[in-house]
Amino acid sequence: MIKKGTRVNIYGREYSIKGDASDEYIRELAGYVDAKMREVAGNGSAMDAAKLAILAAVNIAHELHRLKKEQKEQDMAIYKKTEDIIDTIEEQFEDIKFVE
Amino acid sequence: MIKKGTRVNIYGREYSIKGDASDEYIRELAGYVDAKMREVAGNGSAMDAAKLAILAAVNIAHELHRLKKEQKEQDMAIYKKTEDIIDTIEEQFEDIKFVE
Repeated sequence: MIKKGTRVNIYGREYSIKGDASDEYIRELAGYVDAKMREVAGNGSAMDAAKLAILAAVNIAHELHRLKKEQKEQDMAIYKKTEDIIDTIEEQFEDIKFVE
Repeated sequence: MIKKGTRVNIYGREYSIKGDASDEYIRELAGYVDAKMREVAGNGSAMDAAKLAILAAVNIAHELHRLKKEQKEQDMAIYKKTEDIIDTIEEQFEDIKFVE
């Protein structure tokens, strides 16, 4: 992330976030982190901003890892399904005689 | 995330993270966030822990959104490819006469 900063407000504090993404996208990400921090804050006892932000980051990392795992499982399921389809097609073709 | 807390160290501070995931997984997530904070810290001027953690969270959210976008694009590509394969099979079958 480089370029001039986009001004965003996360959990009541202003930040300038530099990135080569659009201002709109950076504001979307900031809104997402802000929402996660409010979610964590609503869950328990009073916490300082650093702890809140770290717990929000851990939660977002959890989502990221879960999605990566799901994607890997989906890739494997597609690979398996594709193999099954190829086997089925090959079996069907064994029973077919081509005529001119 | 519920249950008793797992003790982790993120950016030199101890946290107790509650979750229904294993201690090992929670430590992996904590290590990931710790690494991201160190990456952000190494990039620029001196920042307090809250700002560092928030920027790390924004970076992780960016990865999450990028992965979601990639997954959506992959799903669409697979859907298109499957349609193409079905069309090809149907075309092939038009040219085949079955014999008993």
